[in-house]
Amino acid sequence: MSIKAVVFDAYGTLYDIQSVAAITEEAFPGYGEIVTQIWRIKQLEYTWLRSLMRRYADFSDITRDSLAYTLRVLALKHDGGVFERIMEKYLHLDLYPDATAALAALRDRKLAILSNGSTGMLNALVRNSGLDRVLDAVISVDSKRIFKPSPDAYTLIESALGTPPAEVLFVSSNPWDACGAKAFGLNVAWIERVTPEAMVLVCAKSEMVAPLTMFKAIRTQMDELGLEPDYRIHTLSELPVLVAAHER
Amino acid sequence: MSIKAVVFDAYGTLYDIQSVAAITEEAFPGYGEIVTQIWRIKQLEYTWLRSLMRRYADFSDITRDSLAYTLRVLALKHDGGVFERIMEKYLHLDLYPDATAALAALRDRKLAILSNGSTGMLNALVRNSGLDRVLDAVISVDSKRIFKPSPDAYTLIESALGTPPAEVLFVSSNPWDACGAKAFGLNVAWIERVTPEAMVLVCAKSEMVAPLTMFKAIRTQMDELGLEPDYRIHTLSELPVLVAAHER
Repeated sequence: MSIKAVVFDAYGTLYDIQSVAAITEEAFPGYGEIVTQIWRIKQLEYTWLRSLMRRYADFSDITRDSLAYTLRVLALKHDGGVFERIMEKYLHLDLYPDATAALAALRDRKLAILSNGSTGMLNALVRNSGLDRVLDAVISVDSKRIFKPSPDAYTLIESALGTPPAEVLFVSSNPWDACGAKAFGLNVAWIERVTPEAMVLVCAKSEMVAPLTMFKAIRTQMDELGLEPDYRIHTLSELPVLVAAHER
Repeated sequence: MSIKAVVFDAYGTLYDIQSVAAITEEAFPGYGEIVTQIWRIKQLEYTWLRSLMRRYADFSDITRDSLAYTLRVLALKHDGGVFERIMEKYLHLDLYPDATAALAALRDRKLAILSNGSTGMLNALVRNSGLDRVLDAVISVDSKRIFKPSPDAYTLIESALGTPPAEVLFVSSNPWDACGAKAFGLNVAWIERVTPEAMVLVCAKSEMVAPLTMFKAIRTQMDELGLEPDYRIHTLSELPVLVAAHER
């Protein structure tokens, strides 16, 4: 079956969410890393919890709420300006270094983003990073008022692009997202950014109890959800070859 | 409105899930704490993710899968006997010291557990801790094949006890559970086991970057989900007075 469309997750896949750490460190010296990590964990939790509770709020509100939570529990005093400066970074996240070239090499397919991000956040982010010139669609879960990995979110790919799941390759670095897409019936390439071997090396060192390790341990390794992505890759630059090989 | 039934969450509320740490430390010296923490985080994540993906597996399977994940990412080698010994502890968790007296003092109301735990796990746990003699019902989400905080889970209270939400006090130490119960329409007492003041003290100390801190930061403080429990208490022993006062 040929791949007619390649659809990417945004946060953590095309865009490096860890790139907020420089701003949080500047705002709260010594706390940049832990703020970034707790913020991301709670941001994800709130998408899942609100989806289950049927109390949808868009990703922009959830991102604010999870940042507010993080600064509250760490008792980091701040004024509104600092808060807004950190939030603003979410509209200017760094692209991963391999993103632009990989997208260019795939331009004979339909290219899109399917993201938990709100329409407003995604449009700003895509424009600010120049990806508006290469993407055919930027799809937010907003219209379904539920977050990934609900199957309702993944149905938006076919509605937006007209491409059935069997002809779509979905690309995500988030293990839960790769599993959700696979459960839905998409072809899935999971980007394994931290290999098990690297994880073991980190754990074997004396700093194994540092939060960075813990964060890597809970976020970067494939989950035990009874599902397996079709492909495991390490960088976006592997995609063009993979897509060509899939069709043989 | 009078409170006809008091319904408790099990894991973290009546039973101390941190009591597995002694077993994990014995099995993996130096790793007991981080195993316990990553295990719990992934256990919760898997309940939410599988609910959203509509791929229910019972809590017993999820508890195994999340332990397998934890030992894999930390590269902790083990044989099947060790794995089963750790799992077995989940059927023999310690009651919080204030649980038995609080339940005895409330015995003029209907008393029940509503838990994500599977029927088998809960029945064993309740029997092993002697709570089968004081509880009127032990309700598992199993029959709905979805986990808290889905409203479908909280509907089981009325089906099992015949008591409408307005006459139920639901008690949980898990912030997301307290919010889910509140969103559903129950009266909710949230047990704040780690106060914000204690949290600030932990964060102010030099070990602020230790995983225990991070775990406390992401698990023990009230979430920003736009919901507020009716009551905040610090120990189960406050419940009898609270229930009496609620009726005045």
